[in-house]
Amino acid sequence: MKVVKFGGSSLASGKQLEKVFDIVISDPERKVVVVSAPGKRYSEDTKVTDLLIECAEKCLKKEDPKEQVNALIDRYAAIADELSLPEGLINEIKKDLTSRINADKSKPDRFMDLLKAAGEDNNAKLVAAFFREKGVEASYIDPKEAGLFVTAEPGNAQVLPESYEQLFDLHERPGILVFPGFFGYSKEGEVYTFSRSGSDITGSILANALKADLYENFTDVDAVYAVNPSLIDRPKEIKELTFREMRELSYAGFSVLHDEALVPAFRAGIPVHIKNTNNPQAHGTRIVAERDNTNGPVIGVASDEGFCSIYVSKYLMNREIGFGRKLLSILEDLGLSYEHTPSGIDDLSVILRENQLNAKKEAEILHRIKTELHADEVKIKHSLALIMVVGEGMRHNIGTMARASKALAKANVNIDMINQGSSEVSMMFGVKQVDEVRAVKAIYDEFFAAVPV
Amino acid sequence: MKVVKFGGSSLASGKQLEKVFDIVISDPERKVVVVSAPGKRYSEDTKVTDLLIECAEKCLKKEDPKEQVNALIDRYAAIADELSLPEGLINEIKKDLTSRINADKSKPDRFMDLLKAAGEDNNAKLVAAFFREKGVEASYIDPKEAGLFVTAEPGNAQVLPESYEQLFDLHERPGILVFPGFFGYSKEGEVYTFSRSGSDITGSILANALKADLYENFTDVDAVYAVNPSLIDRPKEIKELTFREMRELSYAGFSVLHDEALVPAFRAGIPVHIKNTNNPQAHGTRIVAERDNTNGPVIGVASDEGFCSIYVSKYLMNREIGFGRKLLSILEDLGLSYEHTPSGIDDLSVILRENQLNAKKEAEILHRIKTELHADEVKIKHSLALIMVVGEGMRHNIGTMARASKALAKANVNIDMINQGSSEVSMMFGVKQVDEVRAVKAIYDEFFAAVPV
Repeated sequence: MKVVKFGGSSLASGKQLEKVFDIVISDPERKVVVVSAPGKRYSEDTKVTDLLIECAEKCLKKEDPKEQVNALIDRYAAIADELSLPEGLINEIKKDLTSRINADKSKPDRFMDLLKAAGEDNNAKLVAAFFREKGVEASYIDPKEAGLFVTAEPGNAQVLPESYEQLFDLHERPGILVFPGFFGYSKEGEVYTFSRSGSDITGSILANALKADLYENFTDVDAVYAVNPSLIDRPKEIKELTFREMRELSYAGFSVLHDEALVPAFRAGIPVHIKNTNNPQAHGTRIVAERDNTNGPVIGVASDEGFCSIYVSKYLMNREIGFGRKLLSILEDLGLSYEHTPSGIDDLSVILRENQLNAKKEAEILHRIKTELHADEVKIKHSLALIMVVGEGMRHNIGTMARASKALAKANVNIDMINQGSSEVSMMFGVKQVDEVRAVKAIYDEFFAAVPV
Repeated sequence: MKVVKFGGSSLASGKQLEKVFDIVISDPERKVVVVSAPGKRYSEDTKVTDLLIECAEKCLKKEDPKEQVNALIDRYAAIADELSLPEGLINEIKKDLTSRINADKSKPDRFMDLLKAAGEDNNAKLVAAFFREKGVEASYIDPKEAGLFVTAEPGNAQVLPESYEQLFDLHERPGILVFPGFFGYSKEGEVYTFSRSGSDITGSILANALKADLYENFTDVDAVYAVNPSLIDRPKEIKELTFREMRELSYAGFSVLHDEALVPAFRAGIPVHIKNTNNPQAHGTRIVAERDNTNGPVIGVASDEGFCSIYVSKYLMNREIGFGRKLLSILEDLGLSYEHTPSGIDDLSVILRENQLNAKKEAEILHRIKTELHADEVKIKHSLALIMVVGEGMRHNIGTMARASKALAKANVNIDMINQGSSEVSMMFGVKQVDEVRAVKAIYDEFFAAVPV
């Protein structure tokens, strides 16, 4: 059995829904269909979810959301029209929106979540109706009734463990089950949404709960690429990668699937298959627990910028028990989360995301480290980028570092930091932001460029 | 003005003392002479300090230390004899030893320190007498009277800050001042010794206190070498290196001068010159605050073994604020001091010295990390070596990592860890202990071997 999730662009119009239908019925294993809200039809279009957010904001400001409501109804009506769905459906959606708009606004965050969830909820009803119109047994599944319970955290709900057992009962239902993504219900029966890419999370939870053989995630790209396609022309497609590799790549800017969405599938060992709704024949990319490393040591190169480092040195620091722990405690105290801590003998650097700092906070950091740890020198270096070179094959391959660092040297990139040896599937280079693109290109060319004849 | 320190082998015999005398009087700037206890004259010989330790152990066991006392007197007498020093000197030494042996033994550690200090204290008296015999104005300086005050920590005394001001007054005394190394006095007037290489510490303290222009440290090697001479035949001599470079090299096995001994000179910005008593014409090695980096990026390669790593992985660890700090707190709790913490996205390794662990402690570490941090995987890897590649020139030199890692790959050494980027003067490779020597040789050859014609 397969759980199949479709993203917003795959559901943006009647024409897209026809593709979705063809994909689902072409494989009898595709039993559970998780849907996003209708996305953009063209690049200037507005997503349904964004319309709902505007609508909620109007309501909270006690303004009339008429314009947004009309636009929302128009979006669903356009799809229903294109697919010749029965009139009653749009009335039902209208009624649903009206009831949400009139709901309790005493907790603005909760009200916002209630409205945001309308996009997926109504779309699931629409998709189920469409499938039935096509003569296929299909039903909309209400997450509340099915038992998808979550924590009461607006915009960041976490699935409750008991949900898995309850959702398992869905597997007895006949026909195709159309499940709205993005939200669940608190124990008190209130709607709460997941974080960003919440429909991916719903699909992954259902795959786990229903012990699916595969979680298919349909989006609008043919594959995950070995490097950001905006940097390299026609980069290599990744056919298969492991969860670990995906996680390391997505840390540094690969954003095909949100990390959190992978967790339930990963924990249950269910492979995830990323495919293209607009080109279902393409192989796509499979994310699996283990793979053969037959294609060289490196599977992908990614990078992310906006890091800085706090450098602390103190003569004989190395002999001082607890120095590192005290330093990290100060940062925790100041509410800062850090990424890495490369160290020398008498010095230690802490790499963190720059957006957590401002001039005042920096002064505070410098002051506390100097006075509490009696450091000889403390300084903050800005505008660093981290380059991740990822691949399961790396750990058995002597010379990968030599190739990568030589490629960087040839591209005249100075390596500010190397952090290698904890992860078995990656090596990380810290470089200046100005060198980031050149560094990624150099490493991609080293490991992926075709060998000259 | 220069402070000049002579090690045990430079003071082992009358013949050696003649060399010391020639060296001191050849430069009128050499005003303060710090002496160790007489060392070995030949490889099977016993150092005076070791005889004193045996003597103290006998006393503490309430046995007769006669044999050791005789051997001690014989050592000093042989030197006095060789140099035709007056009889009275040896009687004075005999009296001093007897009074120490009869001192309070209620605190065995303190008694041990009192006896150990006798080696340097009496040798300083002997050396001063010898200089006077040669017609030079010279006096023995009593550390108590001169004001070298230390903490009451047996075998690990730390100089008290007020000592520096008091010792400064020595600069008004005429002639050559012969100062015993290795010990000072507590505020209560008790003798306490410094840690290993304590005479080097005394010299460094005096150089700082007296605002010397140079601290000369005479030993029995021509220079500090770029690599351990037992691994490479006739390795390159280092003419000049910085305090930072020396510190990084000595971390990984370079033991010419103990780190702690460098601190007072380093803090006062006083250069240290390591020279050979047996070959004073040799250039020796200068340790300075700053140097020109004209000789390539690398100044030396060192290695040390006996490390292990604790590997911890947990999916989405990266999002968990305080994970690293909590892990380090557990290790601190268990009394473990760690060296480095390379990290991936969802994993973290802690490198520590293996001799702190045993089977029981390892089980405890694994248990606590698993249960308290809910880690997915925890494992301990044994028998690692760290290779330090050191040089001030490194930070301005693109491609040093490429050269080093390529040399390792060619020597078929797998790099388990790289920690680079905090220290500006070193890069560190973790390799398996079995690969250590091969790795050091490969890197030495890359950076130091003569270019083939």
